[in-house]
Amino acid sequence: MFTRRNFLKTSALVTAGSLINPTSMFSQKNSVVAPGGSERMQLSFHDFEAQLRHPFAVSGYTRTTTPIVLTEIKYGGFTGYGEAAMPPYLGESQASVIAFLQRVNLNQFSNPFELEDILAYVDSITINNTAAKASVDIALHDLVGKLIGKPWHALWGYNATKVPVTTFTIGMGTEKEVREKTLETAPFKVLKIKLGMDEATDKKLINTVRSVTDKPIRVDANQGWKDKHYALKMIEWLSDKNVEFVEQPMPKHNLDDMAWLTEQSPLLTIADESCQRLEDITRLKGVFNGINIKLMKCTGMREANKMITLARACDLKLMVGCMTETSCAISAAAQFSPQMDYADLDGNLLISNDQFSGVKLVDGRIVLNNEPGIGVRKL
Amino acid sequence: MFTRRNFLKTSALVTAGSLINPTSMFSQKNSVVAPGGSERMQLSFHDFEAQLRHPFAVSGYTRTTTPIVLTEIKYGGFTGYGEAAMPPYLGESQASVIAFLQRVNLNQFSNPFELEDILAYVDSITINNTAAKASVDIALHDLVGKLIGKPWHALWGYNATKVPVTTFTIGMGTEKEVREKTLETAPFKVLKIKLGMDEATDKKLINTVRSVTDKPIRVDANQGWKDKHYALKMIEWLSDKNVEFVEQPMPKHNLDDMAWLTEQSPLLTIADESCQRLEDITRLKGVFNGINIKLMKCTGMREANKMITLARACDLKLMVGCMTETSCAISAAAQFSPQMDYADLDGNLLISNDQFSGVKLVDGRIVLNNEPGIGVRKL
Repeated sequence: MFTRRNFLKTSALVTAGSLINPTSMFSQKNSVVAPGGSERMQLSFHDFEAQLRHPFAVSGYTRTTTPIVLTEIKYGGFTGYGEAAMPPYLGESQASVIAFLQRVNLNQFSNPFELEDILAYVDSITINNTAAKASVDIALHDLVGKLIGKPWHALWGYNATKVPVTTFTIGMGTEKEVREKTLETAPFKVLKIKLGMDEATDKKLINTVRSVTDKPIRVDANQGWKDKHYALKMIEWLSDKNVEFVEQPMPKHNLDDMAWLTEQSPLLTIADESCQRLEDITRLKGVFNGINIKLMKCTGMREANKMITLARACDLKLMVGCMTETSCAISAAAQFSPQMDYADLDGNLLISNDQFSGVKLVDGRIVLNNEPGIGVRKL
Repeated sequence: MFTRRNFLKTSALVTAGSLINPTSMFSQKNSVVAPGGSERMQLSFHDFEAQLRHPFAVSGYTRTTTPIVLTEIKYGGFTGYGEAAMPPYLGESQASVIAFLQRVNLNQFSNPFELEDILAYVDSITINNTAAKASVDIALHDLVGKLIGKPWHALWGYNATKVPVTTFTIGMGTEKEVREKTLETAPFKVLKIKLGMDEATDKKLINTVRSVTDKPIRVDANQGWKDKHYALKMIEWLSDKNVEFVEQPMPKHNLDDMAWLTEQSPLLTIADESCQRLEDITRLKGVFNGINIKLMKCTGMREANKMITLARACDLKLMVGCMTETSCAISAAAQFSPQMDYADLDGNLLISNDQFSGVKLVDGRIVLNNEPGIGVRKL
């Protein structure tokens, strides 16, 4: 019911137009800037079910699809694309995202360039709904980048060649499945392994991966280790297995124990669930060694880019992560990835029905393109 | 000896070209993005003596000129303008700025959009020289904005209509001079008064201004009050005189006493000399109520914009200030002024031989224009 009939038909044409028609780009520049102009941004959205290439098992459940809502903002002859991806544990659903988007009234803004005001308004509509907010933020960034004719990595002044290698996640499974999956990760320089089950299961998973590869591993414990002494014991066990860091070893609100753990830990610790938004960062200084920025947690690209400045000021390492999501959100996150120490942007590779062509993985590293906005084309 | 003969001749033409020629804008877009392109940025600079409209007296000396160095960066058919303004107390001179600029080698960068890398390199050349660094930063921002065809207030996503009123500074002088100067400030809604002399002189200056106007006053004590109890007594005396805040009441390194003073003070306190750069901000939380960002202190627009994010995260109010400088640096600072709580951008109004036309003062408030970059034209 939310699908727009001509969604697919018009978008490719519009995107292509942004690249080859300098006249339209220039003439519409004036209409954008003109104060009091009558054109308004048109927000539309529809639900989308991402099909997973492999069933995905983590901390006690398995899924074969991820619910997504795709957004568009049209203005000045251009279309900006956005996305909300909702893994079930985040508390958002297609229904909650669409209910949120139905409340977003962009008619009150005449100038899409006023990102600060527009996104402050979007954020003010509800307390949570961070993925829904991100779907507006990403579409608006894509639109503004297309109006300008530049990708965001350039508008932010970043060096497109400095994108870090990205990890590929090995999910849980039988020993045979894990070995097979690990062997399939040849293009990736670094693996990500989700732990946080019981000790025997965690160690078996690591040992199984290590039986077939020596590649560096990044561990994500997903809050799974409830006791700090147990967490330290696990990290010490991991520390001679070529593990680079451990993400979110302990429950997200347990910052006192986490600070103790980071102090004792032979491996770097990175906050995921403990760091959702800009406002969380200052209290994480000294608690973790770094933070994992995800668009769906932090409401989008604008806040993500501010988090970079704040985290650096707090001496925190920076990682960009993702959900299972299309090349739309992955390409959006890739725009600021040159500023990251670590990248985990494999979400689009996990789905079989991607709706976008965007940044590409080459030799284990995302390669940014020079297409405007977030650099995607609708497939 | 540093003046380029054709500096004035070519610049007006180039600036005009950026506004009316979509073809050149578009064709040069490709050359910018192309990796390994052979074009390099051309940095040039020359010294300039700004003539003050009125001799300027503050804390024991009087001056009639301000030394300035003007910069240009040429690339892709565009010219970006920058400026270093050096009031003597900052420790920079035309000679030190020019010595710095002679060390800047932009030939190693093929893409002016890579602001993060280029400006990190410029900052790494020496420890200090913040005004010299700002002159490169401003010219580079102006250039990149022109290459894109957008002003920085738009590229940063700010609402151009949200610029706060700006203050006009009443210098020291005889009672008659002060009264006359105050009466000349009709277009300004708020006055700035520099105190920090002995008690009788400070009080007489305030009383003289108050004898002719009830306009709100912002006080800048320029580190002049050495004792915290005396500072508090002065602030209490000021607090029923329609004073909005007090800038830098005490010596810049005396943060313990300053924290005490801010705790006791009936007026807001704003850090000026205590806050030079991004790295200073976190330790000022709880010490001052806000910070004064000046391009010549903080190395330029890119760091200034990062300071906004960090200061907001530290619950600090934001003010933008200036030196005595041309409309070049004033227009650059005005680009982020929509994010400020307070503005003090009267520096260009103090000089009689401005070299640029840029942002305009209308009804006590700076009005941003929609011209690309920092929005200036060479006169």
